[in-house]
Amino acid sequence: MKSQNLTPRPWSDVAPRLVAVAAGRAPADRVIRGGQWVNVHTREILPGHDVAIAEGRFAAIAPDLSYAIGPETEVIEAQGRYMVPGLCDGHMHVESGMLTPAEFAAAVIPHGTTTMFADPHEIANVLGIEGVRMMHDEALMQPVSMFMQMPSCAPSAPGLETTPYEIGPDEVTEAMAWPGIVGLGEMMNFPGVIAGSQQMLAEIAATQRAGKTVGGHYASPDLGPAFLAYAAGGPADDHEGTTEMDPVVRARQGMRAMMRHGSAWFDVDRQITAVTEKGLDPRNFILCTDDCHPGTLVEEGHMDRAYRRAVEKGCDPLVALQMCTINTATHFGLERELGSITPGRRADLILTSDLRTLPCERVIARGRTVAENGRLTVTCPHYDWPAHARDTVRMGRDKTADDFVIRAPEGAATVRVRVIGIVENQAPTRALTAELAVQDGIVEPDEGQDVAQCAVIERHQGSGQTVNGFVNGFRYKGRMAMASTVAHDSHQIIVVGTDRGMMAEAANSIAKMGGGFSLWKDGREIADIPLPVAGLMSDAPAAEMAAKASNLVTRMRDCGCDLNNASIQHSFLALVVIPELRISDLGLVDVTRFEFTELFA
Amino acid sequence: MKSQNLTPRPWSDVAPRLVAVAAGRAPADRVIRGGQWVNVHTREILPGHDVAIAEGRFAAIAPDLSYAIGPETEVIEAQGRYMVPGLCDGHMHVESGMLTPAEFAAAVIPHGTTTMFADPHEIANVLGIEGVRMMHDEALMQPVSMFMQMPSCAPSAPGLETTPYEIGPDEVTEAMAWPGIVGLGEMMNFPGVIAGSQQMLAEIAATQRAGKTVGGHYASPDLGPAFLAYAAGGPADDHEGTTEMDPVVRARQGMRAMMRHGSAWFDVDRQITAVTEKGLDPRNFILCTDDCHPGTLVEEGHMDRAYRRAVEKGCDPLVALQMCTINTATHFGLERELGSITPGRRADLILTSDLRTLPCERVIARGRTVAENGRLTVTCPHYDWPAHARDTVRMGRDKTADDFVIRAPEGAATVRVRVIGIVENQAPTRALTAELAVQDGIVEPDEGQDVAQCAVIERHQGSGQTVNGFVNGFRYKGRMAMASTVAHDSHQIIVVGTDRGMMAEAANSIAKMGGGFSLWKDGREIADIPLPVAGLMSDAPAAEMAAKASNLVTRMRDCGCDLNNASIQHSFLALVVIPELRISDLGLVDVTRFEFTELFA
Repeated sequence: MKSQNLTPRPWSDVAPRLVAVAAGRAPADRVIRGGQWVNVHTREILPGHDVAIAEGRFAAIAPDLSYAIGPETEVIEAQGRYMVPGLCDGHMHVESGMLTPAEFAAAVIPHGTTTMFADPHEIANVLGIEGVRMMHDEALMQPVSMFMQMPSCAPSAPGLETTPYEIGPDEVTEAMAWPGIVGLGEMMNFPGVIAGSQQMLAEIAATQRAGKTVGGHYASPDLGPAFLAYAAGGPADDHEGTTEMDPVVRARQGMRAMMRHGSAWFDVDRQITAVTEKGLDPRNFILCTDDCHPGTLVEEGHMDRAYRRAVEKGCDPLVALQMCTINTATHFGLERELGSITPGRRADLILTSDLRTLPCERVIARGRTVAENGRLTVTCPHYDWPAHARDTVRMGRDKTADDFVIRAPEGAATVRVRVIGIVENQAPTRALTAELAVQDGIVEPDEGQDVAQCAVIERHQGSGQTVNGFVNGFRYKGRMAMASTVAHDSHQIIVVGTDRGMMAEAANSIAKMGGGFSLWKDGREIADIPLPVAGLMSDAPAAEMAAKASNLVTRMRDCGCDLNNASIQHSFLALVVIPELRISDLGLVDVTRFEFTELFA
Repeated sequence: MKSQNLTPRPWSDVAPRLVAVAAGRAPADRVIRGGQWVNVHTREILPGHDVAIAEGRFAAIAPDLSYAIGPETEVIEAQGRYMVPGLCDGHMHVESGMLTPAEFAAAVIPHGTTTMFADPHEIANVLGIEGVRMMHDEALMQPVSMFMQMPSCAPSAPGLETTPYEIGPDEVTEAMAWPGIVGLGEMMNFPGVIAGSQQMLAEIAATQRAGKTVGGHYASPDLGPAFLAYAAGGPADDHEGTTEMDPVVRARQGMRAMMRHGSAWFDVDRQITAVTEKGLDPRNFILCTDDCHPGTLVEEGHMDRAYRRAVEKGCDPLVALQMCTINTATHFGLERELGSITPGRRADLILTSDLRTLPCERVIARGRTVAENGRLTVTCPHYDWPAHARDTVRMGRDKTADDFVIRAPEGAATVRVRVIGIVENQAPTRALTAELAVQDGIVEPDEGQDVAQCAVIERHQGSGQTVNGFVNGFRYKGRMAMASTVAHDSHQIIVVGTDRGMMAEAANSIAKMGGGFSLWKDGREIADIPLPVAGLMSDAPAAEMAAKASNLVTRMRDCGCDLNNASIQHSFLALVVIPELRISDLGLVDVTRFEFTELFA
């Protein structure tokens, strides 16, 4: 099966049938009887309503639609439960779940997510526009709505890292014509926009001309002229705010503010006060997850989890529901297509007996029951990923311990080196230095100072070129190493370890499995996560991936690392757009000045 | 000057300049200093803000933008006044003002209206799609935003009246590609939609496929399956609700509810309770005027008047402002183009010292000052209307008294006839009967019973064919007649009179002046309103037209008619879509059954 498009027929095509059902001239495909209509347009709960569905869309909502029940009509008794629109994730990355779109959909549908707006930024760095198209095509095959945004910034940091492909205005223009593309992915190059970069503004312009939505990403606390200039450049939303006031100032400037509750992001907690305490018009606030790991999806949920968090933090349930239904749909120009239980819209609906905890007792998407009581009841078809998309790790020859040797300047007994300092629960790193011992002319890591080695290996072009450095903060003890191809944003190979031989083993292991994570301790592999698709995703079920991810965390603890989300810290070491110090396949990068720096201080 | 397009350059084209201004690298064209920013996104008033404008768009809004002031920058001191987005009229007909778009714009700009969504339905009946294009082209020449909707229903009642042109799906598809067309005009043929009319659904589909907004018009109290079927057909808004609950039920069904405050419509009064008492989310409620006569525009205002009415009726000023700014813009897919004072949007803004009464002390549109203290400060360019658009009254030979003779059945001394009964302040008429005397074989009107004659004369094809009938309710005394080419919806000639000779004089007079109103009493013309453009509009200034309209009202009183809005009642006599009894160029129409009926009961 390849590139099958399961998107429902447009309202304009099926209107004659919908009108006939509503008027009582034709039976519905399905009628839900006797539910409480949660109306996100008026912000009301209207008990005692029936819902008629035809052609995958809502045909009518009224107190009594028994006239739309024919001999073939499926009747679903709501028994007084709430009928809530299917949930929308306003900004997310499928790749963060380590799952292909199909398996991601399979994981989140039972949690009530029926619409996703995803930026396949990671695969764009590995496979370029072709990779985006593959994600797009698999997304269109799903029984729920997975819209894609065209990534705007690949590479993220031109000149500071190597990626095999580049996205520019031409690619953006091309993608805007694809059926499942809803806008431009988060414009992370905010310094570029502020500086008036012709390329960045051209990508934004191509999106605006297509009448689509420009995703924003303004990751700076500076709310002065730089922020104003970014807003003037055209991004229509932003999810990068972290302070309480960040979403407020964005909404004032006419940008929709997205509040995150992902695996590692908990911005809803303090930002929901925009609505709960400040009493601002909630229409411009949207809930999203940004990044969810498979364990979160399996054990805690997806948008239902973000919704619950907002409610726990004091948000009125109806307002919180608007923030993950109609607000999101309106933002993407889809308010007449989805996001509410009203005529003509895609028939996406949750039956739930409790509005605060939102148990998704039945999830309906496009008129079909897709999950019941946490169990998926449909298949999420897999795209036939081509061989080259499963063969993206090209490291050249096998690595040996020698590849990770860092030679000291002639005759030195100790050296002062620059060290990347990771900070628990924070994305920025610190630029540290450390005095390290030299043995036989080689600079050695130092468990006492919590300084391990780290390296980035070029894996796209097959050069295998290796850049070595040091990292502080993982608390690794003994002889170990971990390697991964999840290495934001260029997705080279990142290796961290206390032992050079094991660093080589870990790198060779993930090269063999076609990408993923490999953790070694005392000479053997103690955990792995194979991610064969682009070195980023697996087409195995989420539960299986969650178990592997959970095992990795446990085994990392065995190596002494008990940080929250330590594997993310690992994967972010090469993220050369977030300060202060990072490492790329081209060298050590000072991300306060966006230039290379020397290992030896 | 012909077809000049004054629409500002797109945001995507001018973003480099806007970014440079906001970043402080380039001076703004204009900076407004020290105002209170009325923020319709968050529903806040933020004192102490500057606004920078460039390229006709907002470049930045911040507490201090002195850095954007260069030697050429015009500085406007707000002196603590409110900065309010320019007002939007969500649904209106330019023709109701008896003014061309240019003169309509000139009349409403000083009242703070900077955006209009107009359905040129009347001219479509007279000049077809070509007439719509002329309105569209003149609209694009204006210094404010006048968007046009493509009329959906011309003729309004096929088979019951004659119009020279017909609008169908092909015309709708064609017009959707015009730069100033924002959607489909009000879909008045609601019985057609409900019945699944292929033509009506095809017009809606053409609009939806173009990604534009389908205007609604559901003029029925029936909220059962017929209403549900209409909603399922695709109309995205409705302004025809008249009861308190009408806007509520529309909003629940995902349609935006427009509340009218026009010259003769006062629906805001009872409908604003949706927000003020019921506490519903206001985002789906919009204020509009629908129809404003020149006197209203000159003496009372336009959208500022509708806004004030909402506030007087208890609406929070910020909510009421949202209802005529961002709500409207969002509805038409233009929230990133206008409707708020935020970067990138058209720089449409009102400076006012009082939020409740909204005196428009300065009106800025697209960055230019267009009015100050009620005085227009720009020109509103006129389209060069072609000769045939000014020569649309083709009645054939002059009329004589004989054309209005109604012969009784042979030998009758009296006859019982059907009489159209007008009702003050209501659009529907009553189907009455009356016993009238016959003199010399001719049925005579009867001042004692308040029964005058009425007639419709075909004026498009030049046949001059005349259909005669009777009307009750105008209270005309003595010998008089009034004729007009404003004769909804087919805009033939309607004549009402107590004297057949004067009916002929009045008809001949408006034929001579190329359309308009002519009132005769005792053998001479005592009032006229020349409407040379399509027999519907004048390109004279609103004040002049208001004086003429006011004079007509005074003179109608001299003839005994003291009804509110009597000229509208006159113009609606041929409106064969509103019950109960009407007259068209084809005969007397029973509008409860949509069929012809006999004059003699």
